[in-house]
Amino acid sequence: MRDFLPEDVRRREYVIDVVSGVYRRYGFEPIETPALENIETLTGKYGEEGNKLIFKVLRRGEHEASGETDLALRYDLTVPLARVVGEYRGKLPKFFKRYQIQPVWRADRPARGRFREFYQCDVDAIGSRSPLVETEMLTAVSEVLQTLGFNDFTIQLNHRQLLTATLNRSGIDPSLHTTALVALDKLDKIGRDGVLAEMAARGIPSAAASAVLDPVAPREWRSLPDAEGAAAYENVETILLLCEATAASGHIQFAPFLARGLSYYTGAIMEVSVPDLAGSLGGGGRYDGLIGMFLGEDVPACGFSLGLERILVVMAERKMFPPSVERGSAEVLVALFDPASVREALKLAAELRAVDLRVELYPEPDKLGKQMKYAASKLIPFAAILGGDEIARGEVTIKNLTTGTQESIPRATVGSDIASRISRFGFGNGGSRTPDPASR
Amino acid sequence: MRDFLPEDVRRREYVIDVVSGVYRRYGFEPIETPALENIETLTGKYGEEGNKLIFKVLRRGEHEASGETDLALRYDLTVPLARVVGEYRGKLPKFFKRYQIQPVWRADRPARGRFREFYQCDVDAIGSRSPLVETEMLTAVSEVLQTLGFNDFTIQLNHRQLLTATLNRSGIDPSLHTTALVALDKLDKIGRDGVLAEMAARGIPSAAASAVLDPVAPREWRSLPDAEGAAAYENVETILLLCEATAASGHIQFAPFLARGLSYYTGAIMEVSVPDLAGSLGGGGRYDGLIGMFLGEDVPACGFSLGLERILVVMAERKMFPPSVERGSAEVLVALFDPASVREALKLAAELRAVDLRVELYPEPDKLGKQMKYAASKLIPFAAILGGDEIARGEVTIKNLTTGTQESIPRATVGSDIASRISRFGFGNGGSRTPDPASR
Repeated sequence: MRDFLPEDVRRREYVIDVVSGVYRRYGFEPIETPALENIETLTGKYGEEGNKLIFKVLRRGEHEASGETDLALRYDLTVPLARVVGEYRGKLPKFFKRYQIQPVWRADRPARGRFREFYQCDVDAIGSRSPLVETEMLTAVSEVLQTLGFNDFTIQLNHRQLLTATLNRSGIDPSLHTTALVALDKLDKIGRDGVLAEMAARGIPSAAASAVLDPVAPREWRSLPDAEGAAAYENVETILLLCEATAASGHIQFAPFLARGLSYYTGAIMEVSVPDLAGSLGGGGRYDGLIGMFLGEDVPACGFSLGLERILVVMAERKMFPPSVERGSAEVLVALFDPASVREALKLAAELRAVDLRVELYPEPDKLGKQMKYAASKLIPFAAILGGDEIARGEVTIKNLTTGTQESIPRATVGSDIASRISRFGFGNGGSRTPDPASR
Repeated sequence: MRDFLPEDVRRREYVIDVVSGVYRRYGFEPIETPALENIETLTGKYGEEGNKLIFKVLRRGEHEASGETDLALRYDLTVPLARVVGEYRGKLPKFFKRYQIQPVWRADRPARGRFREFYQCDVDAIGSRSPLVETEMLTAVSEVLQTLGFNDFTIQLNHRQLLTATLNRSGIDPSLHTTALVALDKLDKIGRDGVLAEMAARGIPSAAASAVLDPVAPREWRSLPDAEGAAAYENVETILLLCEATAASGHIQFAPFLARGLSYYTGAIMEVSVPDLAGSLGGGGRYDGLIGMFLGEDVPACGFSLGLERILVVMAERKMFPPSVERGSAEVLVALFDPASVREALKLAAELRAVDLRVELYPEPDKLGKQMKYAASKLIPFAAILGGDEIARGEVTIKNLTTGTQESIPRATVGSDIASRISRFGFGNGGSRTPDPASR
């Protein structure tokens, strides 16, 4: 688990603001759920391995000594969503489009880039089976990535029923489908020969295994004897065609071997990746059965989860954060060396803040040199110095801490003057004046 | 613990954006700490009662059956701050000004307005004993409240050493000071007679008790025989005087009986309230000893905590949220009734989103009447209808769902046309175009 110092928080908030701004423009609305869920809500939902990774909370008071647990920390955002849909069904619209950006906790052994507390950014659309749902979701995800500055991402699109049809067509017995998909899911990592070896180890006849990996022409997909498979291919083709009219155009491709681990998918499945990151930036798919498991009736749903931590890693490596995020602390230090001018210094700070500058007032009268050193160590670009002389003349001395130059400026215009220098020279403004690329 | 549906989240985010925007302009920077702390970090820090209210997390894996706990949920933001100051001391500036807005968890019995998961908004300045620290903090808090629309708040200011001097001057034995302060702290709630009765019950002689409550003239405060008390009064006067030059002017007053519960305060103490809320909207004070307890050396510090949940309650009762927050879902429904125009509908949605409108695309072709009903139920102000005729003419039909009127508008200007109608008639825009009062 990690502490986030100011620079980390600014970077995280920047990405979260872009994600939520884009999702809102697509008609998704935010929800938040509590960190603690009743333990019964979570257990049994994530498989045997998942169960072991749930953080469980001890009962309190007289029950504490029993060692019993009644609450558990949120493990993902999908189960809480299903609970919310069940609990508030009457209050929610027929098509419920929500996004949720909150931490989840898993008692995984910590490793490089894997944390026990991490954020998920989920977007889900509930209530429709239309391929427009997948299209809009992939368009929104594309716009998020483009707004963040990613132009080289790839969306892989496949369909769960198409995988089933492929396995059937290759002559793999339905009892072996699950194990075959586990092997197929590794194609990216271990290559064709690796998958063939793994299929063999999993008891799949080699002729069938290699048939799975054979290329298939579009004509053949369309004429699949398996009716569900043919319908699945039509669904994929429809989504691809619709995406051509959107921000996903040029990024999306049919990926007949994309398997995605989670067993609850029932329709289209999708994954987004960039060349310089092993694994994906996010993924999702249609899961028309999962919410029904909670509600006792079928509720169509489709979701996508962006990996905030992975996006942050790639953006840091590629230096994709705007200067305003990287230099987000104070923009002006109001220096304080004469106890008699403290009240004027307070007023000056207020005047500068009124034009949206981020201003730190040095808290105690001290030697100017020390204060300039302090400002430089915090990468504050300007210092404003206000002595008795300046006050008498109605001026402020502004020192540029990058160049070392200083000049006197009329008090009335000092705020707008510094603000324009900052925007001219690209000093950090932390989003306080420039509108965010996607404000909330 | 609560779920927050979209309207709740929008209101919370609005307040959080204002708070963090103002704090940033005052040179405070954001940090975030993990929800789970090592249990030793928390135990013993909140008194016996507090200890019982900590949510403790069971050890995992082979240790799970032992019933032992090793982690605990964050109980406040001050102890994590002290831990961070100790852990990253070399990386932090000499004057460390941070804000932190995160949930904390307490196993209190839930009651009206009291929750087991709730947010704290803390701002702390570490490293200086200057009264400018208190002044700037109260100014920032005032600006937060004014930006939210509160103009009738009162800041009460007192000083811990002044309370001690008052008790000494009244002849209360130092061994009874703590219990006397507990009684005095209730003055707001139970009145003068109530406090006198409670002091009597706590074994404080009645003459001394009523002397505590006697009014004292400024001249007398200044000439207190108790040197620490006189210095404390000077500190209070300095803060009051400095605040006159700031946004706190007209709101702040000396409150000689303000006690504040927490025992760790060492200097100025302060509390903010509004007339229509029992209790306070927030409070804080100087605590020069607390961080030292963690670090083994004295570190001056001053902090203020705003009660997000209380602010939200009053703002909801007073209907203080701007329309943009109350009506924050989609602004336009792009209707879909002709399967042949799906691609054009997708393009239209993209065009409207490009001018920052929040747009929901109806996901499946359906009867127009049904779609208009859906839009009205979601309080979406406009519907955009694009049939074959409209496409051929290069137009879009816009229906105003409030008035029921509709008209055809050239496709090229439909986005800016709807955007200007929305800003003209004050339909919700969720902060997507109008800059937030205090953007992050």
